[in-house]
Amino acid sequence: MAECRLLCELALLIAVTASAARALPLHAAQRAGDQCGYKSCPATKPSMLNVHLVPHTHDDVGWLKTVDQYFYGGRNYIQHAGVQYILDSVVAELQKDPARRFIYVETAFFFRWWSQQSRSTRNIVTQLVQEGCLEFVNGGWCMSDEASTHYSSVIDQMTLGLRFLNDTFGECGRPRVAWHIDPFGHAREHASIFAQMGYDGFFFGRLDYQDKDRRMKTKEMEMVWRASASLNPPTADLFTGVLPNGYNPPPGFCWDQSCSDDPVQDDPALEDYNVDDLVSRFISISKAQAALYKTNHIVMTMGSDFQYENANPWYKNMDKLIHYVNAQQANGSQVNVLYSTPSCYLQELNLANQTWPLKSDDFFPYADGPHDFWTGYFTSRPALKRYERLSNSLLQTCNQLEVLGGPKSRSGPFGKGDSDTMKRAMAVAQHHDAVSGTEKQHVADDYAKRLAEGWAHCQVLVSNSLSVLSGSEVPRVFCENLNISVCPLTEGSKMFSMNVYNPLARPVSWSVHLPVNGTSYNVTDSSGNVVDSQVLPVSKPTQYIRRGRGYAKYELVFQVQAPPLGFSTYSITLLKTDVTPAEPERRAPVSMENKYLKVTFDPNTGLLSGLTNLETQQSVQLTQNFYWYNASVGNAESSQTSGAYIFRPNSSTPCAVSKKPDISTLQNSVVQEVRQQFSPWVSQVVRLYEGSRELELEWTVGPVPVEDGFGKEVITRFDSNISSAGYFYSDSNGREVLERRKDYRPTWDLTQTEPIAGNYYPINSRAFIKDGKAQLTVVTERSQGVSSIYNGSLEIMLHRRLLRDDYRGVGEPLSEPGEFGNGLVVRGRLLLTLTPPETAADSHRPLAQGLVLQPLLSFQEGAPKPTSKLEFSALQAALPPAVHLLTLSQWDSESVLLRLEHQYESGESKAFSQPVTLNLQKLFSTLEVLGASEMSLGANQWKENMTRLQWNPSDGEGVEPLWVGLGDPSPWEIILNPMEIRTFLLRVRQR
Amino acid sequence: MAECRLLCELALLIAVTASAARALPLHAAQRAGDQCGYKSCPATKPSMLNVHLVPHTHDDVGWLKTVDQYFYGGRNYIQHAGVQYILDSVVAELQKDPARRFIYVETAFFFRWWSQQSRSTRNIVTQLVQEGCLEFVNGGWCMSDEASTHYSSVIDQMTLGLRFLNDTFGECGRPRVAWHIDPFGHAREHASIFAQMGYDGFFFGRLDYQDKDRRMKTKEMEMVWRASASLNPPTADLFTGVLPNGYNPPPGFCWDQSCSDDPVQDDPALEDYNVDDLVSRFISISKAQAALYKTNHIVMTMGSDFQYENANPWYKNMDKLIHYVNAQQANGSQVNVLYSTPSCYLQELNLANQTWPLKSDDFFPYADGPHDFWTGYFTSRPALKRYERLSNSLLQTCNQLEVLGGPKSRSGPFGKGDSDTMKRAMAVAQHHDAVSGTEKQHVADDYAKRLAEGWAHCQVLVSNSLSVLSGSEVPRVFCENLNISVCPLTEGSKMFSMNVYNPLARPVSWSVHLPVNGTSYNVTDSSGNVVDSQVLPVSKPTQYIRRGRGYAKYELVFQVQAPPLGFSTYSITLLKTDVTPAEPERRAPVSMENKYLKVTFDPNTGLLSGLTNLETQQSVQLTQNFYWYNASVGNAESSQTSGAYIFRPNSSTPCAVSKKPDISTLQNSVVQEVRQQFSPWVSQVVRLYEGSRELELEWTVGPVPVEDGFGKEVITRFDSNISSAGYFYSDSNGREVLERRKDYRPTWDLTQTEPIAGNYYPINSRAFIKDGKAQLTVVTERSQGVSSIYNGSLEIMLHRRLLRDDYRGVGEPLSEPGEFGNGLVVRGRLLLTLTPPETAADSHRPLAQGLVLQPLLSFQEGAPKPTSKLEFSALQAALPPAVHLLTLSQWDSESVLLRLEHQYESGESKAFSQPVTLNLQKLFSTLEVLGASEMSLGANQWKENMTRLQWNPSDGEGVEPLWVGLGDPSPWEIILNPMEIRTFLLRVRQR
Repeated sequence: MAECRLLCELALLIAVTASAARALPLHAAQRAGDQCGYKSCPATKPSMLNVHLVPHTHDDVGWLKTVDQYFYGGRNYIQHAGVQYILDSVVAELQKDPARRFIYVETAFFFRWWSQQSRSTRNIVTQLVQEGCLEFVNGGWCMSDEASTHYSSVIDQMTLGLRFLNDTFGECGRPRVAWHIDPFGHAREHASIFAQMGYDGFFFGRLDYQDKDRRMKTKEMEMVWRASASLNPPTADLFTGVLPNGYNPPPGFCWDQSCSDDPVQDDPALEDYNVDDLVSRFISISKAQAALYKTNHIVMTMGSDFQYENANPWYKNMDKLIHYVNAQQANGSQVNVLYSTPSCYLQELNLANQTWPLKSDDFFPYADGPHDFWTGYFTSRPALKRYERLSNSLLQTCNQLEVLGGPKSRSGPFGKGDSDTMKRAMAVAQHHDAVSGTEKQHVADDYAKRLAEGWAHCQVLVSNSLSVLSGSEVPRVFCENLNISVCPLTEGSKMFSMNVYNPLARPVSWSVHLPVNGTSYNVTDSSGNVVDSQVLPVSKPTQYIRRGRGYAKYELVFQVQAPPLGFSTYSITLLKTDVTPAEPERRAPVSMENKYLKVTFDPNTGLLSGLTNLETQQSVQLTQNFYWYNASVGNAESSQTSGAYIFRPNSSTPCAVSKKPDISTLQNSVVQEVRQQFSPWVSQVVRLYEGSRELELEWTVGPVPVEDGFGKEVITRFDSNISSAGYFYSDSNGREVLERRKDYRPTWDLTQTEPIAGNYYPINSRAFIKDGKAQLTVVTERSQGVSSIYNGSLEIMLHRRLLRDDYRGVGEPLSEPGEFGNGLVVRGRLLLTLTPPETAADSHRPLAQGLVLQPLLSFQEGAPKPTSKLEFSALQAALPPAVHLLTLSQWDSESVLLRLEHQYESGESKAFSQPVTLNLQKLFSTLEVLGASEMSLGANQWKENMTRLQWNPSDGEGVEPLWVGLGDPSPWEIILNPMEIRTFLLRVRQR
Repeated sequence: MAECRLLCELALLIAVTASAARALPLHAAQRAGDQCGYKSCPATKPSMLNVHLVPHTHDDVGWLKTVDQYFYGGRNYIQHAGVQYILDSVVAELQKDPARRFIYVETAFFFRWWSQQSRSTRNIVTQLVQEGCLEFVNGGWCMSDEASTHYSSVIDQMTLGLRFLNDTFGECGRPRVAWHIDPFGHAREHASIFAQMGYDGFFFGRLDYQDKDRRMKTKEMEMVWRASASLNPPTADLFTGVLPNGYNPPPGFCWDQSCSDDPVQDDPALEDYNVDDLVSRFISISKAQAALYKTNHIVMTMGSDFQYENANPWYKNMDKLIHYVNAQQANGSQVNVLYSTPSCYLQELNLANQTWPLKSDDFFPYADGPHDFWTGYFTSRPALKRYERLSNSLLQTCNQLEVLGGPKSRSGPFGKGDSDTMKRAMAVAQHHDAVSGTEKQHVADDYAKRLAEGWAHCQVLVSNSLSVLSGSEVPRVFCENLNISVCPLTEGSKMFSMNVYNPLARPVSWSVHLPVNGTSYNVTDSSGNVVDSQVLPVSKPTQYIRRGRGYAKYELVFQVQAPPLGFSTYSITLLKTDVTPAEPERRAPVSMENKYLKVTFDPNTGLLSGLTNLETQQSVQLTQNFYWYNASVGNAESSQTSGAYIFRPNSSTPCAVSKKPDISTLQNSVVQEVRQQFSPWVSQVVRLYEGSRELELEWTVGPVPVEDGFGKEVITRFDSNISSAGYFYSDSNGREVLERRKDYRPTWDLTQTEPIAGNYYPINSRAFIKDGKAQLTVVTERSQGVSSIYNGSLEIMLHRRLLRDDYRGVGEPLSEPGEFGNGLVVRGRLLLTLTPPETAADSHRPLAQGLVLQPLLSFQEGAPKPTSKLEFSALQAALPPAVHLLTLSQWDSESVLLRLEHQYESGESKAFSQPVTLNLQKLFSTLEVLGASEMSLGANQWKENMTRLQWNPSDGEGVEPLWVGLGDPSPWEIILNPMEIRTFLLRVRQR
């Protein structure tokens, strides 16, 4: 048992250690870990029931208050919470007794706090960490949402947090346990990520109440989660435990300042002496809990939201509890209570040498009661969800260009730029009350503001980097409002150039819509070839949305190409002409068609009626419309309302916004459009680009009217003749796809109590339905909620505006005011493909990645200088189609972090679900790779040092490999198997 | 500027000091004070505005929770408050920076906390005290109520707290400042007591809002309070300051966990940076405050109720505030802010060498708004008020008998007894939410329970002591319910003896009513002489009240005598006889009369109609009746209701309970009674004992009916033909009498907004009206509210039962359930005298003291043993009539604390308002006085060492002596001047 030495002993001992740890190369830091981790765990009593008290605080990285307000304890009238004081107080209390333990989770806060500490406090904290008294668990920048996050950003935010811990504390700062006690449902991909990051176990608090009931009865509260259907076990196996009381202490034993449980009143001279009562209640609770778990170890989470601001009441009373409960051992009690941590509890479970049930689906949707499905937040705040996703795209571009442009990127002709601001903003935005949309409005505004600051810093970096790479120092303009046809430069310029930076490792083509006021333009590509372009009138809805921000009458539309990990440059020149662009025709369309796709419309309603893949010659009947569910305000069955978290329609039948939208159509050599106006607040452009294999549906929803007193949850629904038989599919955090089935859960016998809300699942990038012949896939550009209520149908929730709070703490109805206060307008796109099931992934994988990492457009006034470089690729060649360049980011002055991903699942694609070999030295055209070391996915451990605890799943599905892996052919040549992500630290120099 | 050294330095330095301080004789402790007190004060800047931040907590010794619940932090669902954590936290924070300061006030809590601390913590605390970082202010066991307390118990509770501080910390623990920040109005006698205890100054928070307004305008927030009209200035002069914000911090600067003000957010990297704003707001508040005060020093109370449970947020932010505000001095700011204490602030005021306005009335009544007079609590919980007063009587007896009976008192034939339990219970009961009646019901129950435990412990001590003094070890029974004719022993016994212990230093006679079932008894005194006795039927109201607790049919009534500071013993034997005691006659009385007094009744109504003093041959018309004010539930003028604190009748005209009570009369050789039944819930016995100069009115009120929805505030009103002209008089804490005048305040031009409630004042022992010839004096046995609304009238509020809370925090309507849940019945007595004004004090002084220290009756079964001593006096002779033995209490094994009081005011009595000489060695018959040292009134300083700060009152009324004092004739012979209390530590041994 390690000891946290007291303050006076500390001062001399550790002055060196702390600074050493910070400067340590990763190897050395790992060696220093000998005293912490599992070795610092307290002794337990094998013959007794050991109760592990885990003192902890749960610090939301924004929710009712912003992350900085939470850190400082500002605006305490909203919620009493100040993280600075929590860390102050815990550090003081840990010094008082070497037996005490504390875990800390959210590095976003710890980072802020650490930056304000004196050298002596840092020394003390380092010692506490080294002796295992203060243990980091999870350790990401935040505790991410699992339903609406994309794996790319989850990995980034974890990496950011873990790196800070590693830089600061070395191996002793490496979390052993993943800890998602609060997120509202759990994604399998998250578990896979945690496993690949080297975590030994995972604990959470929330799961479906029916699931929990069953697991308690069958002692299946702890299990092995096999979190990938592609990766060989145990690569993505993660020991997973459900905590007994969410993340709260057992009733009656909360001694935080925010609680009202009686303290241990042990002075017989005073009234209300209660030791005997407390001890017997505690022993009885412990025994009852032990009956639900498999071993003679149980865990109790002693803490909750923002607790331990005053740690003394907690520790003082736990000290007494431990003393008095264990004193009963002299009278024959078999209960042994001790301070512990999740990893120490986990170690005991591991030593117990049990077998554990195997879990291979996920924990969605989450319900905490029959009418309380937390499926609304899959869609809540759709604009924030999109902004977050778009910010990730910019961040990856920013990261790449920081590497490719070299040091001048950070300090160049346009000043100082950085990717750190965006890294932190994005990391904060992953929090389970951020991108989830479950925060208060002012906090959502703060997340957006942080991202906007990230954009500003990245834009400087990108400008600097592009000036290095292109040789042009002409200022660049970034037009963030192109989706509503606003861009002052293109609106007013007679001649400008456009840089198209492509962050993907394969060439892309992309359709651009530039707001202009001229009626005809000449567009040329990097080689000077003229590109077909068209000028279309700006749509009415767009004019409405952008009001006051731009006045372009037209959009210039053309297709661009960009090389892998590089850019191309287009020149646009206003032509003098009298041509007035054609207004859309107000007529019901019959069909539109290019060489790949044919789309038919019902001439009576103007709605979509069918889709044909002209290559495969397969057709489906397909209608699409917009509906809204009337949000429940509670009823006789339950007072539960729809709110930021909860989706609860008051009827299973949604109202159609319109059965016959106003229609206009438009057709030219670049694009064919059917513009559908369903109501003043719902419109759509159905768009087929020349050369596209997918149909684009650009929807615009809002301001959702609520003057009628009805909260509205707006969906679009596709109804087809595909025989989906209740099955549908959605991705997990944008990676592997999970099978869903209406009114069914794989692991328990579901009693369905909410026929709509209880069938909703998150969609992060794609969802589909299929039958033997056809697969209809929808690819989306943000996280949403999806379901299939009818055979052949797929519905996606697009927007929500509600009039009631849903009693889960946020204390506000979800009713985003938007810029003009009358309700937020949201615009988005769905991409539709129709394919045979066997080849569906071949199109939806690249389509989805193309939406995730979309080209960054930047504009320069005038014609490009002749000396400037108009086209650039950092790769020697495009990577193979199966390979996604997930991360390319500057690590330190000499090295970069590289993540390569096989983006196909095993068996998903005949063409691409195969191992791929890559040569690391032959990737880059502009970088020379001097060395490469493989790391864990979180980049806080060398791969070779990863030694995770081993667990035995119970039902025979042991660790049989799914496939026989091959070793890498050589140190430079690496093999990627389906769904594998490999992480390397490359030592590089610019060629 | 002293420094609070840090933890690590402390450990070695002070191990000895702490234990030494505890064992110190008083002299040595005083010498040790050189480093603390005023010498530890922080440096200030003479040319700047110095803002003294005083970190403090206000810890009610019971209110919404019991004192022990407050200490531990139990029942936090009622109110979040746990004093144990406050002291833990403050001690930790003080160690972090030598500049930090804290004051602690309530020794009841500090004592509990100290008793649980380790040796090392005690050492640290001792050092903090010695260096002035932790300063005790006030220092009594509690912060006493000023309206409903008796000076005797106030002095006791102060002595208890101050002694603990002195024993524990020596001179450094001696408070320099009195601090009554919360009590609801301020009594002049309290100020006098503080002055005599050696306090240099006094600060409080609450005063009439009109008074405060004027004082702010005229800069009279600080003053010299001349608190006695009898004692020579500056003996009872007390520098008194009104704090600027009650006892709260200025708006926006509360950093307790219970507050929501934004912290100092000084990290420019985070959102919501607010340093500039906070600094400028603080400077502007400081300047505005300075405009209300006379010097360039101002004080800010940085704390409030139960604050500093987590001291870190407070200190961390104050540290920053001080840093950033003072940093502005470099930019020309003239504001200097510093950690300070009340005494350090006081010292600066003293050094400022100003003259200060003189105040000689008091601060009653307190109003915080035009309809918000805190005059209800003068009467709230009348039964608790009586129980507290009666407990004081028992405590003084207990103290005396502990001294007189020697060590066997504490451990004798009846087991272990003590006076400490009662001392602490009484000290707790003095709190301003205890005897005041402004606590929650369960807390009132707790105060009563504590007193009951005090009684039990004292009864053992008294039994032991009386067995020593009488030689009889026959068990003694104490009948606590004699007032409702319940005493199992007397009810069933055929032969018993009664010990009458008289705690006064003069002989007394007293009428006893013993519940019996026999019809005739023989009563003999200590000498065997038969005493006239009568058996009367128990009255109907009494039978109703006592239901289930006793079944006596009769009361045996006779008069007893007891020697000074001693006892006599009466033997009572049942006689066999057939006589049935006469039932009262149901007839309207005309008059009753003894040789001193004639009382007449209106034959039509049965009400009192006149009173004649037969000795002075003076008569007044005098009627008396019972009324109730209808409690306001708020009206258009103000939402203010009547509640535990506030008295607000909804009409100035009270309702008569009855204009014609049911009457019965009873007359015999011992007593004449007229029994008046006004209603089922109001009755009265008008009683004239043979040989009494006063008329006794025993009233019984309750259960007050509230089924009609009206809260009721029950008064009795005397209406006479005395020409009182709006003047009336009431005592201050049972000592000096203050003149009151209807709709008038001596120190400002009153705007009267509540014609009844705004004219109420506390009465603790007596009130009177008078004209040139006659004075009608009412002496009471508990604290109440009194007023004179009409010429010649005097009304006393007896009981209150209300249906609304009054919005001052208690959160309950004052509606005492009583034993049977239907409302509390209260019984009490008023004694009425009619005298010439010049001789009124000659009777009301001894009458009042006789009610305060009433004889203690104890009973033994059977006849006294022949060997036992039936009569005893501890005095060589009765003390002179002007002298009251205020305190005789064991101090330690060798010494006793003696307080002798001149109980007449200067000029109050021709006969007695004269200096009296006493010889300390000739006081006691059973104690030999070996040495005597005079002390301050609080017994925490030798009188010779008392050197209070001197102040200059502004208006010429300097320190002219009222009279020329004489020195004591010899060390043993001491002179008492009017209203003087002298305190001695006597070294004694039993003769």
